[in-house]
Amino acid sequence: MRLADLSERSGVSLATIKYYLREGLLPPGRRVNTTQAEYDESHLRRLRLVRALIQVGRIPVATAREVLAHVDDDSLGLTIRLGAALWALPQCPEPPEPAPAAEDPSDAAARSLVDDLLDRLGWSTARELGDLSPAHRSLVTTLATLDRLGYPFDADDLLPYAHSMEQAAAYDLDRMELLPTPQEQAEYAVAGAVLFEPVLLNLRRLAQAEQSTRRYGL
Amino acid sequence: MRLADLSERSGVSLATIKYYLREGLLPPGRRVNTTQAEYDESHLRRLRLVRALIQVGRIPVATAREVLAHVDDDSLGLTIRLGAALWALPQCPEPPEPAPAAEDPSDAAARSLVDDLLDRLGWSTARELGDLSPAHRSLVTTLATLDRLGYPFDADDLLPYAHSMEQAAAYDLDRMELLPTPQEQAEYAVAGAVLFEPVLLNLRRLAQAEQSTRRYGL
Repeated sequence: MRLADLSERSGVSLATIKYYLREGLLPPGRRVNTTQAEYDESHLRRLRLVRALIQVGRIPVATAREVLAHVDDDSLGLTIRLGAALWALPQCPEPPEPAPAAEDPSDAAARSLVDDLLDRLGWSTARELGDLSPAHRSLVTTLATLDRLGYPFDADDLLPYAHSMEQAAAYDLDRMELLPTPQEQAEYAVAGAVLFEPVLLNLRRLAQAEQSTRRYGL
Repeated sequence: MRLADLSERSGVSLATIKYYLREGLLPPGRRVNTTQAEYDESHLRRLRLVRALIQVGRIPVATAREVLAHVDDDSLGLTIRLGAALWALPQCPEPPEPAPAAEDPSDAAARSLVDDLLDRLGWSTARELGDLSPAHRSLVTTLATLDRLGYPFDADDLLPYAHSMEQAAAYDLDRMELLPTPQEQAEYAVAGAVLFEPVLLNLRRLAQAEQSTRRYGL
């Protein structure tokens, strides 16, 4: 496809695509004559990923270039390839910006996906509180962004993650209950939220590297 | 204890303690005469929490004040009290700064804690890579910071979380393997790291609220 078609199919403006090409974030198309180049599905996929990194992850262009260089290095085994790409990423990306004011189909889909998920989990408090809870709002926004970027999820995809987090949360409260007063318990919960999220995310990255080595070798 | 003792026992400078008092982050001591006040263990605990919020979580003072107001509101049931405090916190706190150059006992303790944990998990790749992996370094730094702030952990505390993350990582790779080429798999892993961490953390917060309601009511 031509540059204009790439822009239309990806929803990314021509100016932005040209910027990504100039910065080496998007590989050049195949030249067909002196003024035109041909783009394919791999360019569409790459645009989706570059937007995830830059617009959602708010990662500096130089970091994104480094991450993508590892993603593209097919001289590496999969474990090292994944490891190098993930090592170049910041440890805790920021959550996505709130969605634009006008509801679009991705917002509506994300909202009913979260409702469906919470019903199946039997998390009735979260279901009732709905939008009142910042975690609920943020989850909907994130899933809508994933959908808009071309990474759709359904409730079946999310259930195993929710079950893992349910286990972790039960354990959080078990630990909290060891403290003698509600005051100390509330203090512990706040400290745990601030200090323990990096622990969990680092454990996740280590577990991914371990699983990857077991499955694909080094 | 007097202000000077509070400073010595907490390791927080007098100037910083006075700043926290002025900003309403630390409740005033009990006046014993016109120039002196008496502080107790609850002030020590509060200083530890304020440092976690401000120095590690890098949360603005106004946000910290709001979080602490909910922590201190004993008119609320525990579920609402925790919920309100956690809702006021940013969704994804930044990981702690690297430790000061000089090794202290907390660093050494955190390093051997992580080695012990990885041994018990049988995560041999993570164990061998050690410091080479940013997730490993960041985990050590975070646990050392927790220890310095007065929140010590041991490997038994961390094992259940590591097992939850191991499940999630296995599922990450199951999903990744649905894609046909190593290139697409590597792209998926990078997008998942950037986009999926907020999903996990939001699910954790929702699970905490759910567990809390089940145990303590609303």
